[in-house]
Amino acid sequence: MSRFAALVEVRLRPGIADPAGTTIERSLPALGFADVTGVRTGKAIRLEVEADDADTARSRVEELCRRFLTNPVIEDAEVTVEAAS
Amino acid sequence: MSRFAALVEVRLRPGIADPAGTTIERSLPALGFADVTGVRTGKAIRLEVEADDADTARSRVEELCRRFLTNPVIEDAEVTVEAAS
Repeated sequence: MSRFAALVEVRLRPGIADPAGTTIERSLPALGFADVTGVRTGKAIRLEVEADDADTARSRVEELCRRFLTNPVIEDAEVTVEAAS
Repeated sequence: MSRFAALVEVRLRPGIADPAGTTIERSLPALGFADVTGVRTGKAIRLEVEADDADTARSRVEELCRRFLTNPVIEDAEVTVEAAS
């Protein structure tokens, strides 16, 4: 068994309103950042998982996401896995 | 000028309490995920920025983070930049 570090990015699905992102985006021109657009906010969850290999670690984290960490109706999860340092 | 897609991961600095992460972690064994530990929650902000090159895009986003998107006392920001698709 080895330890793997995973980053789960939970994003609102396309088409789902993102009031926080919209609010940030609207304020940017007045703050001098008119060159920044398309702001979308989400959650970043870091964790470590014990597994035999990276693929097993990934599928465990994806299962965890499906069952507990995301609301599949409005959210997508993107999982990135690497060996824990 | 080109468009760049950036991902900003805003994390609590080491040592700063993360009640959400702790709550998730404590519930995992009962949910059958005792192999998952070290849960830390944060924010994931995606945005697009117009810039001459990737380095300029990165420094613009880092400036935006320092000034508006993070609380430097308790948060760190990690910026990833790539050409927009």
